[in-house]
Amino acid sequence: MDSRTIGILGGGQLGRMLVEAASRLNIDTLILDAENAPAKQIRASTLHVNGSFSDASAVRELASRVDVLTVEIEHVNADVLIELQKEKPELEIHPAPDTIKLIQDKYMQKMHLIGKGIAAPESVSVENTEESLKAIGSKFGYPYMLKSRTQAYDGRGNYVVSSVVDISSALKALSSRPLYAEKWAQFRKELAVMVVRQKDGSTLSYPAVETIQKNNICHLVYAPARIPDSVQTRARYLAEKAVATFAGAGIFGVEMFLLEDGEILLNEIAPRPHNSGHYTIDACPTSQFEAHIRAILGLPIAKNGLALSTPTTNAIMLNVLGADHPNGELEICKRSLITRGATLHLYGKITRPGRKMGHINIVAGSMYECETRLAQIQGADEAVSSEIEDEKPLVGIIMGSDSDLPVMAVGARILKQFGVPFEVTIVSAHRTPFRMTKYATEAATRGIRTIIAGAGGAAHLPGMVAAMTTLPVIGVPVKGSSLDGVDSLHSIVQMPRGIPVATVAINNATNAALLAIRNLAAFMPEYQLKLEQYYISIEDEVLGKAAILEKIGYEEYLSK
Amino acid sequence: MDSRTIGILGGGQLGRMLVEAASRLNIDTLILDAENAPAKQIRASTLHVNGSFSDASAVRELASRVDVLTVEIEHVNADVLIELQKEKPELEIHPAPDTIKLIQDKYMQKMHLIGKGIAAPESVSVENTEESLKAIGSKFGYPYMLKSRTQAYDGRGNYVVSSVVDISSALKALSSRPLYAEKWAQFRKELAVMVVRQKDGSTLSYPAVETIQKNNICHLVYAPARIPDSVQTRARYLAEKAVATFAGAGIFGVEMFLLEDGEILLNEIAPRPHNSGHYTIDACPTSQFEAHIRAILGLPIAKNGLALSTPTTNAIMLNVLGADHPNGELEICKRSLITRGATLHLYGKITRPGRKMGHINIVAGSMYECETRLAQIQGADEAVSSEIEDEKPLVGIIMGSDSDLPVMAVGARILKQFGVPFEVTIVSAHRTPFRMTKYATEAATRGIRTIIAGAGGAAHLPGMVAAMTTLPVIGVPVKGSSLDGVDSLHSIVQMPRGIPVATVAINNATNAALLAIRNLAAFMPEYQLKLEQYYISIEDEVLGKAAILEKIGYEEYLSK
Repeated sequence: MDSRTIGILGGGQLGRMLVEAASRLNIDTLILDAENAPAKQIRASTLHVNGSFSDASAVRELASRVDVLTVEIEHVNADVLIELQKEKPELEIHPAPDTIKLIQDKYMQKMHLIGKGIAAPESVSVENTEESLKAIGSKFGYPYMLKSRTQAYDGRGNYVVSSVVDISSALKALSSRPLYAEKWAQFRKELAVMVVRQKDGSTLSYPAVETIQKNNICHLVYAPARIPDSVQTRARYLAEKAVATFAGAGIFGVEMFLLEDGEILLNEIAPRPHNSGHYTIDACPTSQFEAHIRAILGLPIAKNGLALSTPTTNAIMLNVLGADHPNGELEICKRSLITRGATLHLYGKITRPGRKMGHINIVAGSMYECETRLAQIQGADEAVSSEIEDEKPLVGIIMGSDSDLPVMAVGARILKQFGVPFEVTIVSAHRTPFRMTKYATEAATRGIRTIIAGAGGAAHLPGMVAAMTTLPVIGVPVKGSSLDGVDSLHSIVQMPRGIPVATVAINNATNAALLAIRNLAAFMPEYQLKLEQYYISIEDEVLGKAAILEKIGYEEYLSK
Repeated sequence: MDSRTIGILGGGQLGRMLVEAASRLNIDTLILDAENAPAKQIRASTLHVNGSFSDASAVRELASRVDVLTVEIEHVNADVLIELQKEKPELEIHPAPDTIKLIQDKYMQKMHLIGKGIAAPESVSVENTEESLKAIGSKFGYPYMLKSRTQAYDGRGNYVVSSVVDISSALKALSSRPLYAEKWAQFRKELAVMVVRQKDGSTLSYPAVETIQKNNICHLVYAPARIPDSVQTRARYLAEKAVATFAGAGIFGVEMFLLEDGEILLNEIAPRPHNSGHYTIDACPTSQFEAHIRAILGLPIAKNGLALSTPTTNAIMLNVLGADHPNGELEICKRSLITRGATLHLYGKITRPGRKMGHINIVAGSMYECETRLAQIQGADEAVSSEIEDEKPLVGIIMGSDSDLPVMAVGARILKQFGVPFEVTIVSAHRTPFRMTKYATEAATRGIRTIIAGAGGAAHLPGMVAAMTTLPVIGVPVKGSSLDGVDSLHSIVQMPRGIPVATVAINNATNAALLAIRNLAAFMPEYQLKLEQYYISIEDEVLGKAAILEKIGYEEYLSK
């Protein structure tokens, strides 16, 4: 798709996956790294450069052979890139050398972001003395984070200062480095967003994901993050805003903290593909690696092209780290081969304890299925995380008045019992018609799949909502003080041709909820399974009663 | 995942994609083909062999450097493989050299299959004389197929003999080759199934797909094929049965004809990855290339691991052929970059008219979306194929008696109008209780997403079906000869807690159908769109009437 050659500083797994994406587009790549580095293995060329990306002459040698330079790691010799940019304006370097230089120093990076109005943990530079660290303890309180400004990754170079007694060991651990301190962010989740900055400065983002660290190394990534839509939107906005402040094109990994109170703080930015974006290879039409290649060459990206492949696509990425005994990590890899929906990506590296050897992407129609498959791959050692808090609602329960709540709550309890994410609120057709309009017209785009509407008397709510949405609407006639609820029943069920309301029996919110679950189950297998279990249990209940009736006889049964 | 090195005879695009899959599993590959062949480009090695896969010494050289030998093309020197197998029993060769040899001769291949009881077009060997060809015309009738027994691919070596006057030109075109003739198969569709034969002789298959040829070259592949489930099952069964008759492990591409009368005939078999399986790279968790690598190394494949990624995954593959003017095919490639859900795979080849340069996979939640995106990629030149015949039903309409049909047919017409695949039948709760049981319990596994049940009087059908399935059931009370249908309404709507029936108004099958469409639309965006258009149209209708009423006054309006 482009006759220019891309030079990549660094040939580890990120470089390798960049090369894979480039080759699929017939784009040539040359690598600077040690001989036989992972990226070099999958691109035959006599023009790769052997050496280090921190060695100025090696960088210059690569630069002399390519049209576009980029990086798979930020710890490159940025000074020589800045010089090269001046000497050879025709050589494109992405992201801009100044951006790489700025991001390399995590304290300068943070100052830059805070200066641009990006929410981030409060940070101060420190002198490497006990007095300086004590003063920070007094300012920030404990714990606080002591961090190396440079050459830090995968948690190396970070130290949690829990109390004043930690200070001397913290200094001992990090004393050889330039340091800064960060106020402690008490986070609920760690989020990450991959952002593409295009040559014209515009930004596009992948969905916000949730990262789970283990021993300071990325362990699992849940895509999308199990957070409300509003948080998802805010996370992407913050990430795009942050990336927009840097120069040059390419993909950026933005790590964030979601605090207990819902606030989102930017943690740090990587000016390159990122571990939290590996899921995109199997879960999105365009991977983060291809997006980077396209961005630095000025090739376009489809509208919405960074979304998950389908509305029901969910993914979990599991990192494969070198085990303590040689090739012990292959056990997990072997289990991935026999797990449906799992795809194994190995990096061509020599195994070493804790080294990133590969990753496994698990893709399925729901996070529940992904988690089940993850458990299979992990074996019995690690339990399934069954956390599904904050899932966005699939069913909306609305009612005309709080007096309907005792009836409708029964349905809500059924949804809860089945683990269906739902919401409950009051919407009155006659008293809040505009609220009703907004609710009905927005429900589908918010991800609601079925609306349950309860109403009594004239009972216009279900029918009116049905008229303003294309979602299935289930009507529950609520029994009023007169006419035994037949008025509500007729008002709800006798809809004119064209606007159906799925009407259930008077006061029977249970059936409304079960019907909503059937609607979901027709497309979401996990609910199908739960429904089958439910019907087995209600059958058992009747059979139990029958057994007792047959045993004690009907007269005694009646007398109980 | 395996320390053995795989040698591949042939380094075109199929070899290249095999290499890509192997590299992701840390499996080393060596290629025999011309220097810088597509597969060699993406595997750095000084041990690749330059030369031809028909040259015995080159094949022997590759064999000396690897543990396992396989092919990306069947036109290799099979004799040397047979010798090698005898000389070096420890060298694994997949598929077995005898299999490759047998399949190379298309006439012998066909005789073998027919001998094993596989349905295939009747075939006879011919002498290259006009008399012989005339005799075949008398035997088979016209048209018939004259085919080269060897070295044929992409339609080269095939000649349609339409009548006796074609015979001399047919002979002229093919006279230098050994020939055979096939009886003409008047097919409705061409199907293909990729089958994996494992080392233990067991077979696994991907879904049956539909291939569309253009100038005898594969143009489009629809996955899954737009055929009824029963045909899908028969096609896979036939393909697996055929592949089971060959020795050795690996993937086989099985091409078939679906005849007008529903019969399926085997066309031909390729003992290697196949163009009709390229969709698996983006639409299945495990691609045909990875499946081949796993099969020849004896690595396992997940149960159901060859299925499409999710129950709603649909895919279209478009081949990118070299255009008549240099790089003209890049126009289609560029449009694919801006098309959501499209993934471009280029093969690193020099462009030449008609040459397979790459392919584009389009994946979406429905075939309708795939086709829309395909049209975008193809530009205005090619119209969208809107063929959706034979789609499996999403909605089942059932009724207790044929006397309910006039009411229920109105709903069927609505489904038809919306392009929803559906089925209509009679199921009586009281007169065919076992048929009802079968219908209700099997509906979900057949792919039905919603059942519409109409009944009058005691009207037990909707409720009984709801009790025996977890699908959403919509009940239509049909007005009987007495009680104005209120008896049916109450019988259907007043279900006990636990078993909901979505009840619509008396005789209102329209609303039942629209409700079923809403259930689908909550998960299938194409119906959402159609519903929105429908509601705009009924709004327009009312507004039109209002305009007339306001213009001519209510008295005149009434008198009309």
